[in-house]
Amino acid sequence: MSSSKSEVDKWYEIALKAHRYYGGKIETIPKVPVEKLIYFAVWYTPGVAEPSRAISKNPDLSFELTSRWNTIAVVTDGTRVLGLGNIGPEASYPVMEGKALIFKFLGGVDAVPLPIRAKDADDFIETVKKLEPAFGGINLEDIESPKCFYILERLRKEMNIPVWHDDQQGTATATLAGLINALKIVGKKISDITISMIGAGASNIATYNLLVKYGAKPKNIILVDTKGILHAEREDLDKLMFENPWKYKIAIESNGELRKGGIKEAIVGTDVVIAASRPGPGIIKKEWVAMMNKDPIVFALANPVPEIWPWEAKEAGARVVATGRSDLPNQINNSLAFPSIFRGALDVRARTVTDEMAIAAAEALAKHAEEKGISEDYIIPTMEEFEVYVKTAVAVAEKAIEQGVARIKRSRSELEETASTIIRNVRLKYETLVKNGFIKDIVQL
Amino acid sequence: MSSSKSEVDKWYEIALKAHRYYGGKIETIPKVPVEKLIYFAVWYTPGVAEPSRAISKNPDLSFELTSRWNTIAVVTDGTRVLGLGNIGPEASYPVMEGKALIFKFLGGVDAVPLPIRAKDADDFIETVKKLEPAFGGINLEDIESPKCFYILERLRKEMNIPVWHDDQQGTATATLAGLINALKIVGKKISDITISMIGAGASNIATYNLLVKYGAKPKNIILVDTKGILHAEREDLDKLMFENPWKYKIAIESNGELRKGGIKEAIVGTDVVIAASRPGPGIIKKEWVAMMNKDPIVFALANPVPEIWPWEAKEAGARVVATGRSDLPNQINNSLAFPSIFRGALDVRARTVTDEMAIAAAEALAKHAEEKGISEDYIIPTMEEFEVYVKTAVAVAEKAIEQGVARIKRSRSELEETASTIIRNVRLKYETLVKNGFIKDIVQL
Repeated sequence: MSSSKSEVDKWYEIALKAHRYYGGKIETIPKVPVEKLIYFAVWYTPGVAEPSRAISKNPDLSFELTSRWNTIAVVTDGTRVLGLGNIGPEASYPVMEGKALIFKFLGGVDAVPLPIRAKDADDFIETVKKLEPAFGGINLEDIESPKCFYILERLRKEMNIPVWHDDQQGTATATLAGLINALKIVGKKISDITISMIGAGASNIATYNLLVKYGAKPKNIILVDTKGILHAEREDLDKLMFENPWKYKIAIESNGELRKGGIKEAIVGTDVVIAASRPGPGIIKKEWVAMMNKDPIVFALANPVPEIWPWEAKEAGARVVATGRSDLPNQINNSLAFPSIFRGALDVRARTVTDEMAIAAAEALAKHAEEKGISEDYIIPTMEEFEVYVKTAVAVAEKAIEQGVARIKRSRSELEETASTIIRNVRLKYETLVKNGFIKDIVQL
Repeated sequence: MSSSKSEVDKWYEIALKAHRYYGGKIETIPKVPVEKLIYFAVWYTPGVAEPSRAISKNPDLSFELTSRWNTIAVVTDGTRVLGLGNIGPEASYPVMEGKALIFKFLGGVDAVPLPIRAKDADDFIETVKKLEPAFGGINLEDIESPKCFYILERLRKEMNIPVWHDDQQGTATATLAGLINALKIVGKKISDITISMIGAGASNIATYNLLVKYGAKPKNIILVDTKGILHAEREDLDKLMFENPWKYKIAIESNGELRKGGIKEAIVGTDVVIAASRPGPGIIKKEWVAMMNKDPIVFALANPVPEIWPWEAKEAGARVVATGRSDLPNQINNSLAFPSIFRGALDVRARTVTDEMAIAAAEALAKHAEEKGISEDYIIPTMEEFEVYVKTAVAVAEKAIEQGVARIKRSRSELEETASTIIRNVRLKYETLVKNGFIKDIVQL
């Protein structure tokens, strides 16, 4: 387990070399027989006219006769790429392609990296809407806040395929999954606890909303932005109402005791701290964790360096600590959520992903870990537990059917069969390509 | 060799079943090692930040560090899909995906089917321009005429990646390739011949322009649209100038003898007829072919049924006959052109595809057939002659370098090595997947 700055620098160096060597991360490949060229008369002219005719009579058939049923776009405007800020669409491509790689490898979902050059939020929205016929879903990524709230809200309303902003909803879903089990360990209930949240960007605002939907009391949650604790008497409320109504709403309804101050004042006396602010360490101090309620739960999610190192939080008395890092225990990892969310949504051709579907995913993730046996160092599955993606996808799909947002209905066993076959096949194909020497190992660089 | 209507109906039936069975035609697959999950630290966070940073400093690096170098979009608005008309973007998906399949299998090009819902030509143009950061090139497809001329003209001018409208340029390139060799067989020169062209849609207007660029004399070409022969005294000239300036220009400069009338009057006394109108047979009558100059060349390119059957044209004296069908000799087939055009353009990161690059492709195709030995029944390679794609790609790339539209320069041997490695690898991967049972043969349907 390594965690120093130089370790991260090493990843950077390898990553640059590896991206150059492989020239990107995904490619397309035929999934139909083409070795006899006469087959092109089936896949192209003249045969292809018939599926086209059929879809023109019933556009929903595009989910049966084309790859649309399994294809999503990973879309960004490049305005908030990782921690790098507004570096533009070209520079965001590696991130979008990395996401597409994970979508396919873990969820069996075909994803197209789609960084676009948009003038503003409305321009972005109009562009994405025009792409609807090409995709079964849209995964938004790395869009600056608060623009991302507006974009997600409008696209969810105005499109007939699932639109998901992973920096909001994916993080919220994974965080909820971890929190469900963390609370079990300390024996507390979501409806009773107080929660401090450090950072009021895309992820924490979405997490706030999902936690509230799951049963947390708004008045018991305290959010901190760059100007300090949000409360109903802040001087910038009018400005906030205009510029960031999503944050404004939280300022009004949260923090029932009208707590004021900074990060320290927010954390003190709460049961849980969820930090998604900026890379630390030192954003959260040991002394502050020591002043939390009994059995503190600390989620320090900034990447690559958490707001407080887990061992420091533990020394200060934290009972459960989670981070965003794969090399530390309890990784709150979007990659647990988005592949299976879309797997489930696509398998029933959902028209949207509801908050309840996200909660169903979080519960499935938590349940999986619980069945394996949770502990302070294991509150959430790791990416290696491949069976969790199928389970989560099925939970999401069933919730979609239950809520009437699915275009087709399938039984649980059909859903399991579908999701597991698709995901297993990706793995098998990938392994076959490796075995046959088509994908060389990275250590050869 | 079969050519009856019921034969085509059989393709339709198989195609519908096959599209449903396979659920589309292409999929994505990792091209990098991912079996150890720690590798996601290279392909995704934190490592991916480094290629993103590098690209933000130099956007051209997106052609080195991502799959952009090999990825194009197959874009349509669904306004003129095959012979089916304006059936909308969803219904055009099977065609776009078929094209993407061919792009990969024959040219090693990763292509994304992208049917979009656009209000009008300008809306379409603005949308496609916003997608530039995601792609190394744009293949336009199945857009109604004359809108397609305007769209291609503007996008070629306003984008910094190759934009190609295959219904125009691909058909023109393949037609020119066939014509070069047909003229060799009859011993005539492009600068001397008279050409009648039946149909004045996207393909024939583009073919006209390419033939003129190649050396045909405008005054020696006679175009026929639905209202008859185009000439400089047509009553609808003013309307044409406004609604279709591309056709207007031809009306003014072509047909030096001011010939008037219909298809018959156009064909009589010409050396070559190029028909790209609507499925026949019977659009062109035997008697008219009999009234052409010595050694008539007849290109009857309508699909699925040519404007005149080859055996009828031959009976009437035609020396060389070509059609658009794969089951007849001399198929004038876009699939010979677009995979290698883009292979060549992408391999030097071309900023555009010039007309000269298209001519270089046509010449390479013709030369390949000539080297194998041309005859009346073999004026153009078939899709099976896989070596032709590499040769053509190299010719296109070299022309791009020569004309200064290439971002990078490569020697001929480097270009050959690159194109052949990429294309061979697709085939080998595909065969590996077939051998391992992942792609079942279509006869099992």
